[in-house]
Amino acid sequence: MSPKVTVLTGGVGGAKLVEGLGAILAPADLTAVVNTGDDFRHFGLAISPDIDTLLYTLSGKANRTLGWGREGETWSFMAALRSLGGEDWFNLGDGDLALHVLRSARLAGGEPLSRIVGDFARQWGLGLTILPMSEDPVETRVDTDQGLLAFQRYFVEHQCRPAVRAVDFVGAETARPAPGVIEAIACADVVLIAPSNPWLSIDPILAVAAIRQALIDTRAPVVVVSPLVAGKAVKGPTAKLMAELGLAVNNHTIAAHYQGWMAGMVVHGEDAAPGDVPVARTDTLMHDRGDRERVARVALALALDLR
Amino acid sequence: MSPKVTVLTGGVGGAKLVEGLGAILAPADLTAVVNTGDDFRHFGLAISPDIDTLLYTLSGKANRTLGWGREGETWSFMAALRSLGGEDWFNLGDGDLALHVLRSARLAGGEPLSRIVGDFARQWGLGLTILPMSEDPVETRVDTDQGLLAFQRYFVEHQCRPAVRAVDFVGAETARPAPGVIEAIACADVVLIAPSNPWLSIDPILAVAAIRQALIDTRAPVVVVSPLVAGKAVKGPTAKLMAELGLAVNNHTIAAHYQGWMAGMVVHGEDAAPGDVPVARTDTLMHDRGDRERVARVALALALDLR
Repeated sequence: MSPKVTVLTGGVGGAKLVEGLGAILAPADLTAVVNTGDDFRHFGLAISPDIDTLLYTLSGKANRTLGWGREGETWSFMAALRSLGGEDWFNLGDGDLALHVLRSARLAGGEPLSRIVGDFARQWGLGLTILPMSEDPVETRVDTDQGLLAFQRYFVEHQCRPAVRAVDFVGAETARPAPGVIEAIACADVVLIAPSNPWLSIDPILAVAAIRQALIDTRAPVVVVSPLVAGKAVKGPTAKLMAELGLAVNNHTIAAHYQGWMAGMVVHGEDAAPGDVPVARTDTLMHDRGDRERVARVALALALDLR
Repeated sequence: MSPKVTVLTGGVGGAKLVEGLGAILAPADLTAVVNTGDDFRHFGLAISPDIDTLLYTLSGKANRTLGWGREGETWSFMAALRSLGGEDWFNLGDGDLALHVLRSARLAGGEPLSRIVGDFARQWGLGLTILPMSEDPVETRVDTDQGLLAFQRYFVEHQCRPAVRAVDFVGAETARPAPGVIEAIACADVVLIAPSNPWLSIDPILAVAAIRQALIDTRAPVVVVSPLVAGKAVKGPTAKLMAELGLAVNNHTIAAHYQGWMAGMVVHGEDAAPGDVPVARTDTLMHDRGDRERVARVALALALDLR
């Protein structure tokens, strides 16, 4: 019998770990709880970047060159939009638009996000359970030296250049976990935290009080896969942001961040790790399917050891 | 000084006449009042087929092979939509989506359709004035042997196959003309009715009571370009629909339809025409720019003769 695994995840790195878990677990035993703090409306369309990255990655549609969006994408929409004087700071691929248009229409029709995402996953042949962390609006907002920025403005328009002073999650205090999230954490044999940015991708999930409490309460060991590789982030602004927040860019800081409910940690190669935390080591760079499966196996084995 | 011309128009045939008028008039002297009875929401997006056909035709972007949409269009959106199980009876090209997404967003932001359309036209370098007939919802509905169908369901999904018993325009009784429409008719030197389907494309405009009254009141001669060519329609269901409504498919029927305010008529070649109406003759098939300009010149000359 394979263990029931629930993984909290954000963007690209997290999606790779989930792909690795998908290769070694029965689909029915795998649940991904996904950050929706990045979700926003653009031209009125409901965009869920982290959910879509996961859908694209798991269905083999992800654009590996860009690191976002679809492989083989076309860009007629953006060209026409520019010709009409429309805002073009956020790139919407032609195929990518289908997710946003259909999601927006179904949300407007009163369907819950979790059902819509579940249908999308099934349509693309994915057997795991993908849950948005919440169906209530939570907006990750970055306080920077250039002012308060909505997450996508910071991440895409300003390409993470502004120095971050603080991050907050508007709406998180009152947001309820999406249906199934608490059960997925409470009833799991193993809970994993993907190597996503702790401050930008995992913290929005933890900011939903009931989810944080479920992580404290669950009998499952919670194992964190560190997002750091030799004191750097694989991709994205993790290391830069840690430095801006006055934090040492190392696994001690990651461990301290998840302190209180983290049972163990997967760290990269020979990277330094806190002495008081059970640790497993592997090359956490996930270039190909083999890498992803290996990191998933190591994380899972550590967690099962800690039960 | 060139005459001020206002043309009432619907789809492809009408757009060709407007293009011809654009070639012989100063842009500031040309106003097109466009049917919005075909407008509908699809996936929540506001789609204005006749306005968009006019925008595409005048800006040289129209797809001549398909007879709708954009030249050089890509179809990634529809492919992705199908993979997600979305409804695919209405084709939305990737570039075409830009008009719908931007229009929907601006409407949701409270902007009036006429301003949005005006901006689109300006962005694409068009100098004429394009006015939706109304900014209030008017829905062309076709009563057929397969039941009551919304226009696009009849026209696109059922490809005009059902036999038509009647056509009505839901909302027309209370719809107000869009700003500028009445003035454009009242102050014109010449009013033209494009060779669009009288029952499906022109009647929705006439169903707005104030517009019909303006046509009766205007001192400008109103000249109709017949949509019939040798007892047939160039394209679309005009002739089929006339027969289904029990009408003779000839110019006498067209003249009777516009009776009361029509001052003259442009008919094709040697086609029979009612004896009591001033008529001008030309080949009304508008294959190329030269044809379009010629038909425009003939219609304009007849109207100026009738002043």
